[in-house]
Amino acid sequence: MTITVIQYVLGRLRDLGITDIFGIPGDFSFPINDAICNDKNIRWIGCCNELNAAYAADGYARIRGFGALCTTYGVGELSALCGIAGSYAENLPVFHLVGIPGQAMMESRGKVHHTLGNGEFDLFYKMSEPVACARAIMTPENCASETERLIAAACYNRQPVYMAFPLDYATMQVLGQAEPIPTPLSDPISLSAAVDAMIAMLSEANTAVIMPGNITSRLGLKDQVMALINSSGLPCATIASDKTDVDETHPNFIGIWSGRLGIPDATQTFVEGADCILGLGAYMTDFFFGKIDRSKTINIELHAVRVGHAVFRNVQMADTLAELIRRLPKRTDVKGPTPIGLGEPEGKGNDPITAHALYPRWERFLKPNDILIQETGSSAFPMFCARMPKGSVFHNQLLWAAIGWATPAAFGAAIADPKRRLVLITGEGAHQMTVQEVGQFGRYGLKPIIFVLNNNGYLIERVLCKNPDMEYNDITQWRYHQLPAALGCSDWFTARVTTCGELDAALARAESSGTGAYIEVVTKKYDTHPTMKHIHEVIAGNVRINWDR
Amino acid sequence: MTITVIQYVLGRLRDLGITDIFGIPGDFSFPINDAICNDKNIRWIGCCNELNAAYAADGYARIRGFGALCTTYGVGELSALCGIAGSYAENLPVFHLVGIPGQAMMESRGKVHHTLGNGEFDLFYKMSEPVACARAIMTPENCASETERLIAAACYNRQPVYMAFPLDYATMQVLGQAEPIPTPLSDPISLSAAVDAMIAMLSEANTAVIMPGNITSRLGLKDQVMALINSSGLPCATIASDKTDVDETHPNFIGIWSGRLGIPDATQTFVEGADCILGLGAYMTDFFFGKIDRSKTINIELHAVRVGHAVFRNVQMADTLAELIRRLPKRTDVKGPTPIGLGEPEGKGNDPITAHALYPRWERFLKPNDILIQETGSSAFPMFCARMPKGSVFHNQLLWAAIGWATPAAFGAAIADPKRRLVLITGEGAHQMTVQEVGQFGRYGLKPIIFVLNNNGYLIERVLCKNPDMEYNDITQWRYHQLPAALGCSDWFTARVTTCGELDAALARAESSGTGAYIEVVTKKYDTHPTMKHIHEVIAGNVRINWDR
Repeated sequence: MTITVIQYVLGRLRDLGITDIFGIPGDFSFPINDAICNDKNIRWIGCCNELNAAYAADGYARIRGFGALCTTYGVGELSALCGIAGSYAENLPVFHLVGIPGQAMMESRGKVHHTLGNGEFDLFYKMSEPVACARAIMTPENCASETERLIAAACYNRQPVYMAFPLDYATMQVLGQAEPIPTPLSDPISLSAAVDAMIAMLSEANTAVIMPGNITSRLGLKDQVMALINSSGLPCATIASDKTDVDETHPNFIGIWSGRLGIPDATQTFVEGADCILGLGAYMTDFFFGKIDRSKTINIELHAVRVGHAVFRNVQMADTLAELIRRLPKRTDVKGPTPIGLGEPEGKGNDPITAHALYPRWERFLKPNDILIQETGSSAFPMFCARMPKGSVFHNQLLWAAIGWATPAAFGAAIADPKRRLVLITGEGAHQMTVQEVGQFGRYGLKPIIFVLNNNGYLIERVLCKNPDMEYNDITQWRYHQLPAALGCSDWFTARVTTCGELDAALARAESSGTGAYIEVVTKKYDTHPTMKHIHEVIAGNVRINWDR
Repeated sequence: MTITVIQYVLGRLRDLGITDIFGIPGDFSFPINDAICNDKNIRWIGCCNELNAAYAADGYARIRGFGALCTTYGVGELSALCGIAGSYAENLPVFHLVGIPGQAMMESRGKVHHTLGNGEFDLFYKMSEPVACARAIMTPENCASETERLIAAACYNRQPVYMAFPLDYATMQVLGQAEPIPTPLSDPISLSAAVDAMIAMLSEANTAVIMPGNITSRLGLKDQVMALINSSGLPCATIASDKTDVDETHPNFIGIWSGRLGIPDATQTFVEGADCILGLGAYMTDFFFGKIDRSKTINIELHAVRVGHAVFRNVQMADTLAELIRRLPKRTDVKGPTPIGLGEPEGKGNDPITAHALYPRWERFLKPNDILIQETGSSAFPMFCARMPKGSVFHNQLLWAAIGWATPAAFGAAIADPKRRLVLITGEGAHQMTVQEVGQFGRYGLKPIIFVLNNNGYLIERVLCKNPDMEYNDITQWRYHQLPAALGCSDWFTARVTTCGELDAALARAESSGTGAYIEVVTKKYDTHPTMKHIHEVIAGNVRINWDR
């Protein structure tokens, strides 16, 4: 039986668990589009535009481990770059399949549509270089071996790969064959030394805390993380970008550590006062850094271990965790604080919706096993402090921090696991960026619960800039709650709520309606949570904001 | 008086006629955002996302000659790349102002938000290289000279430039000064020889036709083009991407030449049978090429002249046109055919809206001085054949051909000249890509007339692919006519029309309403114009489509 270049690649993506590919068709990508639609094991998931498709593939990879999108040459692939870059930064292995012109057309150097008109056909391939851990132009001869190389690179680096399919080659028969490339093994001497060093540092510490990073979830190691927490007896915390990479209902969980952006509390004090921080791939971004001395830290990285200022290379994270679980003695003497969460919701009836009314209600609304997609904006920082129920996951994009990511990422996550309840919390400024993808939920029979916080502009920018009232922080006022029906989700429950009573009623309806739900939550322009006010003080403290407007 | 780096640049952009800058704010671009909002001569025009801002700047540059947008580091600039690439391909000088981190932050190589987390800060600058004719990272020391170099490059190449402003440098005082760089002069010997050669070829030709390219309009040379047509007495035609680069009401205008994609008619026959084609920067893309022997062609390019296989370099287009107008003898013996246009509209009352009903009505709806922004899709090819009224302009994006361009480009064009009537014709698939920008028209008090052709999917893809019914050609069904109200354009006239009678009534209301208008035109899934059926035959002729569905 013959198999074509694109069929071969799709078969290998299926082996990774990819059963849905997001994209927009185009004439240079027709062979890919055709092959996906003709493949009984893979669904074509049409998106409204390529950036949204990239964000959706990112959301899908967060749930399934891997994701994929398909775009056409030039116009399609460039539109997706910001989303791919986000997957690169956030360690999500997304396969970007790009349909490109056939060899004869490229060699003609002609003025071809979707080119810059200058006869150069390799520019877009070059532009993708910084945001892919590996790339290839697929041919019948290289297909088998390059596919294995790219898959191995995606697995090893947990980052996107770029695969270009020339129009003519895509449907040619694959020549030759290749075996999957095994995962690199750890160097046993380096591994043993690393674990020795970790145990030595931890045994000398009076207090210590485990801080898992989101790379553990990306690798599917969450069970091992919890096993280490259990076997070590140590308290655990995360930074915001790693939220729910530990079970927040576990008795050892002490809360979210927020570095220089966190309001001082027992969690911040415990983490900053600990003699040792055992990071499991946790990275401190500029939002959070400061306050911790590297000599007190251990970090188990993807392929290395850092103990203080020493580095042990060629040790793989899964191996290191397994060895540490096996060898690290259990402590019963280190007790951390109990995280508080967001507290009791305020307000009722006709009371306006304040931050103290809203965020605790959102926290209580969440249920076990929910998928929460949280946009990076002013609503994110209070939600970082929410206590998440058992089995629920909290996804955000704090390093790349592209606003607009959350709406299509939520769509991708819902496609990845339609049986779990999906909750999206976004601000209206971010939502405007990628709003058209709301219609896709309805098209594919998904029932998300979407909250759009409408505070009349980019509140996070107001909090960070020199003059919060500058007009660039203003946006067009939409009637958000009318959007689902206009975008084809005609049976959804929708509401615009301005009081606590309306909010309570809408939350109840969203929970019980059995359809998708879309709730526009209207607050005052500057109403925000103490977490955001604290960030304002840290970053733009010389600017005075009247919060009561 | 001191002037900052960003103030200096904004002042020079104003000198070019830029009074509006499109963008999205961000923390790394606050100094640019602040300076724009504080500049009394420049407006900040907030867009919904960066790709839309780039398309809007492209549309603005089509009307004003130059355009500008402002984005933030990484997430912002990468999202705009596809739009910038389109401006590059289509010769639109757009200034891309990017706010980037301060020097100290970049030198720290820290894990900073909006980076890939790998400590590399110059990646996005590198990624912009293929789509900018010149780039600079602005500093107090280089600001004056680099600004002049970049402006000169934009003027000379008519392509985008990229200007990065480090957070700290943007508000520092400019050091040193620089004078504007003069436009290069033509080499008088080369110019004389080129004009001699052109006159020689034209004088030997029994029939000849002038074909202006859109670069003439980009350079503001439309009057000179018309002067050459008058002084030469020759017929003129254009290809589709150059439509309205001649006055289509001029008696010498013979219509649109469509190369291999055109239905044979008197215009195609005349052009293909001419002894000489005098191109004025006209380029044949792959949509159109074939059928013309280069030895019969002259092309006056931006900085060179090609006469048959000879090239004369260092001659500037304006100089060449002026010299040709002065020296080329007038012909009275070459007469071309009269273009037919789209004919009489068919249908009335409850008749469904067929292509023969729709396109002639759109042709008649257009008025002198209208700006028509035409999306690249199945509606474009019939509209290429429409006779355009005096003073009207027809803008499309046929080389880059990024669907979704038209809606934000129309917004940018409307901002550029709010006094002219703006008409947008788009298909629903393209419209979904960038639909949120509809709300911006209302926010800025603009009154466009928007037609959305709803034929239940990507018709242009159905026409070109192997199996038109493949599901990747299907899209989510929206209620388009409900969108303007949801997006804040609450006073617009909106309609969904399915019959000729409804269409006629809606066209009358759109003309008279005095508000923005948004008309969803519903046709059968495969209903299309003979121009598209012919393209199907040429490109996918072995596929049989039942057009009557």
